[in-house]
Amino acid sequence: MDIWPDRRVLDLFDIALPIIQAPMAGPGTAELAIAVSDAGGLGSLPCAQLSLQQTRAALERIGPSVSRRLNLNFFCHRPAIDRDRSLKWRARLAPYYVELGLDPEADLPAAARRPFDSEFCTLVEEYRPAVVSFHFGLPSQTLVERVRAAGAKVISSATTIAEARWLEEHGCDAVIAMGLEAGGHRGNFLAEDMSRQVGTFALVPQLADAVHVPVIAAGGIADARGIVAALALGSAAVQIGTAYLFCPEANVSPLYLEALGAAGDADTMITNVFTGRPARGIVNRLMREQGPLSSFTPPFPAAAAALAPLKAKAETQGRTDFTNLWSGQAARLARRSMPAGPLTRLLAQQALEKLTGR
Amino acid sequence: MDIWPDRRVLDLFDIALPIIQAPMAGPGTAELAIAVSDAGGLGSLPCAQLSLQQTRAALERIGPSVSRRLNLNFFCHRPAIDRDRSLKWRARLAPYYVELGLDPEADLPAAARRPFDSEFCTLVEEYRPAVVSFHFGLPSQTLVERVRAAGAKVISSATTIAEARWLEEHGCDAVIAMGLEAGGHRGNFLAEDMSRQVGTFALVPQLADAVHVPVIAAGGIADARGIVAALALGSAAVQIGTAYLFCPEANVSPLYLEALGAAGDADTMITNVFTGRPARGIVNRLMREQGPLSSFTPPFPAAAAALAPLKAKAETQGRTDFTNLWSGQAARLARRSMPAGPLTRLLAQQALEKLTGR
Repeated sequence: MDIWPDRRVLDLFDIALPIIQAPMAGPGTAELAIAVSDAGGLGSLPCAQLSLQQTRAALERIGPSVSRRLNLNFFCHRPAIDRDRSLKWRARLAPYYVELGLDPEADLPAAARRPFDSEFCTLVEEYRPAVVSFHFGLPSQTLVERVRAAGAKVISSATTIAEARWLEEHGCDAVIAMGLEAGGHRGNFLAEDMSRQVGTFALVPQLADAVHVPVIAAGGIADARGIVAALALGSAAVQIGTAYLFCPEANVSPLYLEALGAAGDADTMITNVFTGRPARGIVNRLMREQGPLSSFTPPFPAAAAALAPLKAKAETQGRTDFTNLWSGQAARLARRSMPAGPLTRLLAQQALEKLTGR
Repeated sequence: MDIWPDRRVLDLFDIALPIIQAPMAGPGTAELAIAVSDAGGLGSLPCAQLSLQQTRAALERIGPSVSRRLNLNFFCHRPAIDRDRSLKWRARLAPYYVELGLDPEADLPAAARRPFDSEFCTLVEEYRPAVVSFHFGLPSQTLVERVRAAGAKVISSATTIAEARWLEEHGCDAVIAMGLEAGGHRGNFLAEDMSRQVGTFALVPQLADAVHVPVIAAGGIADARGIVAALALGSAAVQIGTAYLFCPEANVSPLYLEALGAAGDADTMITNVFTGRPARGIVNRLMREQGPLSSFTPPFPAAAAALAPLKAKAETQGRTDFTNLWSGQAARLARRSMPAGPLTRLLAQQALEKLTGR
């Protein structure tokens, strides 16, 4: 008995289950995305931390028939370089370098988070994914039109009513209502003040009332109770992130997985110290000592470059002092170690049982 | 067809509808509480801003038969006086006094928020309310035992799993899961860091898993969608605050009501500048200029004393620059101007229709 109360997103994306796996640049893998799509949900391949070549290689590996059932996710920030702030940030981090026996003057890797551009769009036109999702707003209208012309549905995250309306006006087929429980980078692009960000419970119904396109709820959803509740609030589907981090298909280091497994309800904060943009992660030393919200970080994504050597070195010592441990507020609700396909089907089945009162 | 899926709170409080009107010290009135209880929910009389005599007078006016169907709400902070900080806070506010033509040296009214004590407890023993709810933890074990011996059920708010477990261990019959969407004073009493507070969507299921007593969801619930969602997340009832501020029975000034009516989804913040304790309200000048979270406020509730003259004077000029406009994040979802009885019945009826699929 497959009676979902709202078929708008199911029909829009041509999927069987109203569950979207959050892209999660870094931990998200092709294997994870394929498993979720194969199970009937919408798997997402995060491309923000991939080069053009890496993205193409991933799509080749996935194969054209499968990539058509996926969501390709891109960031659409405007990369800003502020050499002066970057130098000051580096100076601020220098004591950590010294502590870890690293050279504070050594060359840094680039903080590679490539925004969506014409070349990325060429890949979309070539591989024709079912959905393209953006984070931090939308790219230029020209690029949005090219994506749509390639047959992909376009979605993006909103953290306020104003952002949801903007996304609808600029061509989104659905809007992700990203409550402040959500892990990883906030999708905010018009709102800036983190102290005004809205919880999932208050955000979803207000967005559902504010826009005509379907709303996808995100933030704090990690079990079947959350799916049923999100649908009750007026969303037509859910986007689940943290719960998929526990799947074997996710690219999560043992240290990260350990932190996730131990994270309590009040162990995350929204911080900008890792990349220069606010994101929710498990509280660690860098967040405590430099944040959670610092006015010293250079603009996104440059802040991440100076942290890379610290993160790598500390991790070799078994410490996550400088690691971005992205997590939402409901890691405790997540199942441990279940592969993504069975997890997707189980969540959907349990939600349906609750919905149909069995 | 009155089929609520979870009867634990209904049976515990002997009420027909799983809707608790949040006490809301200030706007909450006897008329509001009676209307909600008469409609089948649980009405709450906030006593924190009343003297012993005023509380007795209110209970006399209500009458013994009605007061037995109510929830009496008390704060249980430990009043702290910090003369030095109070003087510094006053100095910080002095420019506002000058701007409004007030004497910054004039005597101040006391910031009257009386904690629950033996005398208040005598009133509980005399009037025997169905429920006594506390905010900021619980009073002494002796007082809790006296309240229970008087036949009242005891509840209090938790903002984390740790607080919920503490409340259960110390004798609460149910725990209010207060998500960060909620308006007014946060109930936190073990947790202090506001950047770690949890959204309703993530908090309710985690508390439902963590304690044996029933959980009452609070924060962002203002319509039937919210009731159904809160029950799906594992709560056995809901506590609704902001939506009742629009009722004619609430003691809400025209200026406050206007601000509530205009409040958008992202127009509130958690601030401590009004009383010294964090509380969610509509952003105004004082919050912008001194907060939202200031390290200069004297301890609760003393911060409020120095603001009273500013609030009063500015309000005579039609301005809410210094007014604590408590509100949750979902004011937009609230119905306007409906009396509390019909509102309670309508919310319950609409929720039941959704639950039974009619």
